[in-house]
Amino acid sequence: MRRKIRHCLLIIILLSHTALKAEDGYELWLRYSLVTDQQKLNDYRNTIKGWLVDNNSPTAQIIRKELQRALTGLLGKSVPEVKSATEGTLLIGTANAAALSSLDLKNRLKNVGPEGFVIFNTKVNNKNTLVIAANEDAGMLYGVFHFLRMLQTHQPIGKLAIESTPKTKVRILNHWDNLDRTVERGYAGFSLWDWHKLPDHIDPRYHDYARANASIGINGTVLTNVNANALILTPAYLKKVTALADLFRPYGIRVYLTARFSAPIEIGGLKTADPLDAQVQEWWKRKVAEIYKVIPDFGGFLVKANSEGQPGPQNYNRNHADGANMLADAVKPFNGIVMWRAFVYDNNVPVDRTKQAYNEFKPLDGTFRGNVMVQVKNGPLDFQPREPFHPLFGAMPSTPLMMEFQITQEYLGFATHLVYLAPLFKECLDADTHAKGKGSTVARVIDGSLENHTLSGMAGVANIGNDRNWCGHPVAQSNWYSFGRLAWDHTLSAEAIADEWVRMTFSNNVAVVSNIKNIMIASRDITVKYMTPLGLHHIMGWNHHYGPGPWIKDKPRADWTSVYYHQAEEKGIGFNRTTSGSNALEQYQSPVQQLYSDPEKCDERYLLWFHHVSWDRKMKSGRTLWDELCHQYYQGADSAKWMQQQWNTLEGQVDDAQFRFVKSLLNIQQQEAVWWRNACVLYFQTFSKKPIPPGFEKPDQTLQYYEQLEFPFAPGIRPRW
Amino acid sequence: MRRKIRHCLLIIILLSHTALKAEDGYELWLRYSLVTDQQKLNDYRNTIKGWLVDNNSPTAQIIRKELQRALTGLLGKSVPEVKSATEGTLLIGTANAAALSSLDLKNRLKNVGPEGFVIFNTKVNNKNTLVIAANEDAGMLYGVFHFLRMLQTHQPIGKLAIESTPKTKVRILNHWDNLDRTVERGYAGFSLWDWHKLPDHIDPRYHDYARANASIGINGTVLTNVNANALILTPAYLKKVTALADLFRPYGIRVYLTARFSAPIEIGGLKTADPLDAQVQEWWKRKVAEIYKVIPDFGGFLVKANSEGQPGPQNYNRNHADGANMLADAVKPFNGIVMWRAFVYDNNVPVDRTKQAYNEFKPLDGTFRGNVMVQVKNGPLDFQPREPFHPLFGAMPSTPLMMEFQITQEYLGFATHLVYLAPLFKECLDADTHAKGKGSTVARVIDGSLENHTLSGMAGVANIGNDRNWCGHPVAQSNWYSFGRLAWDHTLSAEAIADEWVRMTFSNNVAVVSNIKNIMIASRDITVKYMTPLGLHHIMGWNHHYGPGPWIKDKPRADWTSVYYHQAEEKGIGFNRTTSGSNALEQYQSPVQQLYSDPEKCDERYLLWFHHVSWDRKMKSGRTLWDELCHQYYQGADSAKWMQQQWNTLEGQVDDAQFRFVKSLLNIQQQEAVWWRNACVLYFQTFSKKPIPPGFEKPDQTLQYYEQLEFPFAPGIRPRW
Repeated sequence: MRRKIRHCLLIIILLSHTALKAEDGYELWLRYSLVTDQQKLNDYRNTIKGWLVDNNSPTAQIIRKELQRALTGLLGKSVPEVKSATEGTLLIGTANAAALSSLDLKNRLKNVGPEGFVIFNTKVNNKNTLVIAANEDAGMLYGVFHFLRMLQTHQPIGKLAIESTPKTKVRILNHWDNLDRTVERGYAGFSLWDWHKLPDHIDPRYHDYARANASIGINGTVLTNVNANALILTPAYLKKVTALADLFRPYGIRVYLTARFSAPIEIGGLKTADPLDAQVQEWWKRKVAEIYKVIPDFGGFLVKANSEGQPGPQNYNRNHADGANMLADAVKPFNGIVMWRAFVYDNNVPVDRTKQAYNEFKPLDGTFRGNVMVQVKNGPLDFQPREPFHPLFGAMPSTPLMMEFQITQEYLGFATHLVYLAPLFKECLDADTHAKGKGSTVARVIDGSLENHTLSGMAGVANIGNDRNWCGHPVAQSNWYSFGRLAWDHTLSAEAIADEWVRMTFSNNVAVVSNIKNIMIASRDITVKYMTPLGLHHIMGWNHHYGPGPWIKDKPRADWTSVYYHQAEEKGIGFNRTTSGSNALEQYQSPVQQLYSDPEKCDERYLLWFHHVSWDRKMKSGRTLWDELCHQYYQGADSAKWMQQQWNTLEGQVDDAQFRFVKSLLNIQQQEAVWWRNACVLYFQTFSKKPIPPGFEKPDQTLQYYEQLEFPFAPGIRPRW
Repeated sequence: MRRKIRHCLLIIILLSHTALKAEDGYELWLRYSLVTDQQKLNDYRNTIKGWLVDNNSPTAQIIRKELQRALTGLLGKSVPEVKSATEGTLLIGTANAAALSSLDLKNRLKNVGPEGFVIFNTKVNNKNTLVIAANEDAGMLYGVFHFLRMLQTHQPIGKLAIESTPKTKVRILNHWDNLDRTVERGYAGFSLWDWHKLPDHIDPRYHDYARANASIGINGTVLTNVNANALILTPAYLKKVTALADLFRPYGIRVYLTARFSAPIEIGGLKTADPLDAQVQEWWKRKVAEIYKVIPDFGGFLVKANSEGQPGPQNYNRNHADGANMLADAVKPFNGIVMWRAFVYDNNVPVDRTKQAYNEFKPLDGTFRGNVMVQVKNGPLDFQPREPFHPLFGAMPSTPLMMEFQITQEYLGFATHLVYLAPLFKECLDADTHAKGKGSTVARVIDGSLENHTLSGMAGVANIGNDRNWCGHPVAQSNWYSFGRLAWDHTLSAEAIADEWVRMTFSNNVAVVSNIKNIMIASRDITVKYMTPLGLHHIMGWNHHYGPGPWIKDKPRADWTSVYYHQAEEKGIGFNRTTSGSNALEQYQSPVQQLYSDPEKCDERYLLWFHHVSWDRKMKSGRTLWDELCHQYYQGADSAKWMQQQWNTLEGQVDDAQFRFVKSLLNIQQQEAVWWRNACVLYFQTFSKKPIPPGFEKPDQTLQYYEQLEFPFAPGIRPRW
């Protein structure tokens, strides 16, 4: 009878779970739902009969809470905290923990560094135990989340011998969040940071943000927009920042800020912000000391300088290194760092904007202080659906280069298109720069291993807002997740990351996992096809970047237009970046140049990025370029429909509210894919003068219709009344 | 054993409720938590053994869902839907419902109109039943929510004979929400309306918004800011509006929009928006027909014209009636209405801004179409913590006047101050205009009974955003709630409304109810004391209206400054609105004038509103005016501390997350109360030249300190990067 009651209770708990609330995505990948594989469940219950965290740090308190929550959910029963290792104890601690003293942890932990961890089965006092150990608090927390992920994804835990160390040191989110709570290129509501109520009111959501980041190894957050406001450095705001830093600290997360280069003028009362001016240097030193007084582990600064109107050292005829080094000197005594963005283009329109970062930064290699990293976007333009890797990777051997990925989908359908970005991230990370011969991948540049840099880092421009589900689109959570996972270990495959994310977020049912994974893995290429196939780029709507805008021209800068990039005319289309054109190709190592320089051999995915070619050119498919372009646009839109159909088969197999949410967004995506297709095909047809190939449905609107559409209130841009 | 199991299950459900989530305020006053009074619980279970909704309208479906949810929560068990009346059936239907055919409902319902309802115990088929009946769907829904409220507040339900009819017809929220999702004077996050994802994605939150409104009888919503944008009237946006209107319809809620007066120029391509121009009239007629084609029950327009820079009929030398009537003619064939705001002041600074609405509108009385209401703010200035009632009330007998209350706390501490507004609303509603002799209350003006108007209405400027708890401050929900309740029945007392709200939101524990009610009831007077005691007004911070700013002067308009309103100088302080001053008093009926005209007899709460008096003037307390002013400021700040202390006694007696949230906000409020006190006392002291009375702690900062504080990113104002 007792067992019957217990069984009943369990069902009731589960039912009430379901009955009480439809899922709203708030819990992210930390849902900790009951393990549905009965054998695994029994296994886990037998292996984890109790747990012990031999530590009393604030981080250990967080671990305790997380374990209680997670194990209760996953195992469907409360698992007790025990006082000493008995049969089936999960033992957690750092190297010096008394309960782990018999295990020669120093040796086991000698390679994992301050953030790594080990997980292994062993006997303690002759009892079977499972150990999660690390050198420091953060490693302990990461180990616990790793272990919980194994349970969430139904992995075996009987014979574990895991050693894990992050491949990059600074794994950081960049929030482009303004002090008025709008978010530049944000598509998930208002900023999380409620500056007005800080520091006195702490939104419980800040804790969940920290938990989510810690669970995937993210150890830093830049709270403010790179288009910076100096007010964040004033005492009133530093109090608010301090409250967040205090909260994030035990989660292993350091706070960073964006430094407005002209802050010494704007809030310091100085006449100049010249980085070589002694008063300016002194002002920053005092400001930095003021920050570290209240935030002793303050991470440092992220700076966008002399780019898109932001002030910088060039205003004073100094170079980027002068600017970066001044700030680096100020934070150096406190072990802070400076992340200096390479995303620059000067006010005179260059022949080819994609060349400029290289031209400006390569000559500065070797002149930066040791605590400066140059933060480089994955591609040389600006987060397009597909770009070749940035030529700076591998070109500045003496400077640690950070990766800057964009998690928020500025150019990939905002928060209404399902686009899984790990394949995009991986495409760049796995690209071979050939800087030091074959195998000199971008990943090895940015993890520091290629040139033995001590500093290394990966930044992701966050897609997080105050939407209940954090990222707007339920599946956009996977991009936050993948970014963190890849920053920890860039050797993970996009498939593997999708697999674990789907299992944690939706279901461990094999068919469901496979179905959603298929959609996710295909989604990025599908999006490229309906937006910018064959190497096209930067043909989106003006300013808000919403929807197609290949017709955009006559703007303040030529390189803010679309016609500048696609170069379509009667004979052909594409940007010639070979020796006969802008010669941007010369910025790559010679083996890379050879990959792309010959239009006959060039990977067609980059054809129009590097070449201007004839509409009649024969493609690998046997079609002409024009027919192939149409083919890709139509295939992209058709595949968007395929995604819908695939998703629809999941009804009843995933949470219903989440099912319906994604379904409605896929409907939007499909409509917008058709919009992109129609608008682009009709527009390029005005040059090619060729018919849309037979068999393809005709656009139901005219080009003029698409051209006149206006979206003054598309999200992510400067609000206006 | 079975009973034991059942008991166990119940406990588990309750525990899992608690364990699963700390309350976050999302559920508002519709928490439906288990009835804790065991006798009442037994009573309710015996009286409600099953329920039957004899109706198949979309509204009836909503009722079914609500009953399932509510009864399961309140009674701790699922109550079955039954097919016919048996013992203990809750019977719900409209007059023509077959199941209620024996009850002579036509007669019982003859006085309750389309939205009213009756609730009574009776026998059907010789079985004891409880009946909720109405003439139409909406009334049925209101009746159900009324009944559920009785259960939530532990009322007896054995001998019910309730007949309820709303006192005003249009009970409507005004959302000052912009199309970019910022909210003017909004302090609870982004706008609820996710225009970008509409119409394809329907946020489930829209349903909960509609439920909450229906539960308190709100039957209309103006989706857009009175500072209007014509784009809302374009086809793309009307599709989005239609999606919301379709969703809100079965909840009895009609959608309204703000009409930008210059829309015919901005989106219609016309050269003028002159209301007497035939083309303009035709344009509006066509636009209106276009709207009604997709939203057959569209409510109509709210218009802010010729006020604070908004375009209007005066741009064409027409008057407000000309403008309103043009729109009224357009919506008339569809039974739409126009709500024309009286909040106007012209571009030439008048002697006294509080006189202008009366001066402009009173002469127009009798010239408005029958489907126009003039919407008048509660006071003649602008939603100050305390104002006398607006002199237009009672002054336009031939025109139905709508009330405009501000629920969002623009001048009352944003979403960080606990201020229960029902006492403010009631103070105005209960004020006697004497327009038709004693008893001609403002309430009787706006409910139409004083002049037998068919149309009547009450508008509340919403305090709702996408914050998880809707209103920012947990207790700010009570202001949304009270507005709705008073719009339905203005005879309810502020105490009674607080009582039911606290019971539904926090607890039915008598001590808890009494404690929270005490805080709420006192809160508005406390706020007046630390902000604007003795009739002071409009001395807040510039533009954002955050914090004190009595020193504000030299702005584009004198009547946008503080010095214009407080008139402090060496001899005294206050705005002389008597015959020797602006004579604003003459706009009131003579008995009202007599109340205020003599400074010796004037209610001291309005003294400085109507009079300029000497610093040495003896007050009723025996103190001089200066000492009394100090006394009030200090008492206000002390009382803010008292509120904290009272609240702190509730630890463990209300949900812990909510407890801590309010606690942290009360801490902010207390600090800001001291800030207001110090800044104002120090500032006025520069005129009075008198010491702060002995016994009061000295301000810890100088006046200069307070004057230099800046808050460029205070919420609720136009965002900037």
